Formats: sequence, structure tokens, C-alpha cells
Amino acid sequence: MPNLYTLSSPLVIENANGNIYRAIREDETSFKAFGEAYSSLIFYKSIKAWKKHKLMTLNLVVPVGMVGFVFTDGSGIFEFEAIGEENYKRLTVPPGCWFGFKGLSKKANLVLNISDMIHDDKEVDRVEVDRFNFNWDLL
Amino acid sequence: MPNLYTLSSPLVIENANGNIYRAIREDETSFKAFGEAYSSLIFYKSIKAWKKHKLMTLNLVVPVGMVGFVFTDGSGIFEFEAIGEENYKRLTVPPGCWFGFKGLSKKANLVLNISDMIHDDKEVDRVEVDRFNFNWDLL
Repeated sequence: MPNLYTLSSPLVIENANGNIYRAIREDETSFKAFGEAYSSLIFYKSIKAWKKHKLMTLNLVVPVGMVGFVFTDGSGIFEFEAIGEENYKRLTVPPGCWFGFKGLSKKANLVLNISDMIHDDKEVDRVEVDRFNFNWDLL
Repeated sequence: MPNLYTLSSPLVIENANGNIYRAIREDETSFKAFGEAYSSLIFYKSIKAWKKHKLMTLNLVVPVGMVGFVFTDGSGIFEFEAIGEENYKRLTVPPGCWFGFKGLSKKANLVLNISDMIHDDKEVDRVEVDRFNFNWDLL
């Protein structure tokens, strides 16, 4: 059981013309409020890291490709999870958690975030990828 | 100017590791309420049609690939729009509008819907693709 984030299993509906992947519903326990929905492409082997939100809770799913997420409290402990088409899960990331992610599929990788507040640069802390000593080759 | 739906231009942020595509924010005029967010893959040349919601408003974006959407009031008038990576727009589809869509890119095509209510099969009307006389080869 992870400590830094929450993992859940949204509904997948198989369809001969293309599957349907639920991201989140307003009656699920992961859902707090709706602020903004946006998608982030991440190329194969590219890394976006590190970010920490002071106030925002993120709900992350990967309906296209596979993406490896890494979480840390900054103390040297890391938790990681690879989610995507082959392992369709939702990651709920609370405020105060450092996170980063890496594209794992050679085709497109798409992260969808449903957040509980509108983006505000003042509530985001950012540090360079080498600030925490994580071996990204593990992903 | 379309009559059956509304077209808007959400923010795109270019990024060397993969672009960021906003779907919708709670302070935008297209936003009514948050019910559910889900993604629908649609294979190249596959068609999902026709559906009409009695109550739900849909907000549709295509962050991966290109998808052609067709709208009709059932009277023989059709409006259509191709949106996706090369033409990143949002379609707001009000209740009472018949719609269908077709995958236009040979790679993955992903439709993201942010709807204002939870899915309820009782508020959805469905008819077969040949019920309305639209030439899908136009897309």
C-alpha cells in the first residue's frame, strides 16, 4: 500500500471501435472538487520532474501509452507506479508530495489530470530533475 | 458559425517533452458543472454514431490524433468539424443534439469528454449509424 498517493481502478468499457476509459466521477471518493482538466503528452524516455503542489490535489490517468510516476517526500524515500493502457489505474496525488513522470511507450503517452482547483503558479514548487537522487532507469 | 454546438479554443502550452492541452476550467463559459470525465478511443475509420443526450452537456477535446464529429437535429441538416492535435478546439454539445464521430488518424485517436452529469443510460437515445443519411466519406 502506497503512502504518498492513492491508487484506484476506474471503469474500463471494452468496445470494438475503441475502448472507453473513465477518469473520475463526482461521486467517487477520490473526487474533491473540479478546478481544471488538462492533458500532458510525454515523449518516450522524456522526464517531467519535480513538482510539488501546496494546495492542489491531482487525479491522474493515462488512457494512451504507459507512464511511470515517481513520488517522494524529499527524505530519500521514493514510491513509483507505472500506469497506462496495460494497467489502467488512477493516481490521486495530495498536496505536499513531490512527483515526476517519464514516458514509457514508444508511441504517444498521454497523462490526463483532473485537478480540484485552477492552476496557480504560486502554489507550485519546482526543482530540477537531479535535485532528488532517483534512478530513472528503474522505470 | 455553427448552430448545433459551440466551438472554443482551449489553451495549448508547447513543451519540448510533450505539449500540454487544457480541456476545460471551471471558470470558462462552456463549463456548467462537473459530473464525469472519460476518454473514448476511436480507431482509424471507425465510427461511433448516433447518440443524443436528453439532459447532459458534453465538452469534447481530442488531445491525440484527429476525430471528425457530425451533428444533426435529425431534419437532414448536418454540421461537422474535425478536431485534434492539428486543430485543437473544444466542442460543447448541448442536450437534444444528435452526434457521431469517426477516427481520422492512422495512429491513436482519443476523445476526452468532460460532462456536466454522471452517465445515466435513461437519458441517452441511440440509433444505428445508417438512421441518418450522412456520407461519412466526407470526413
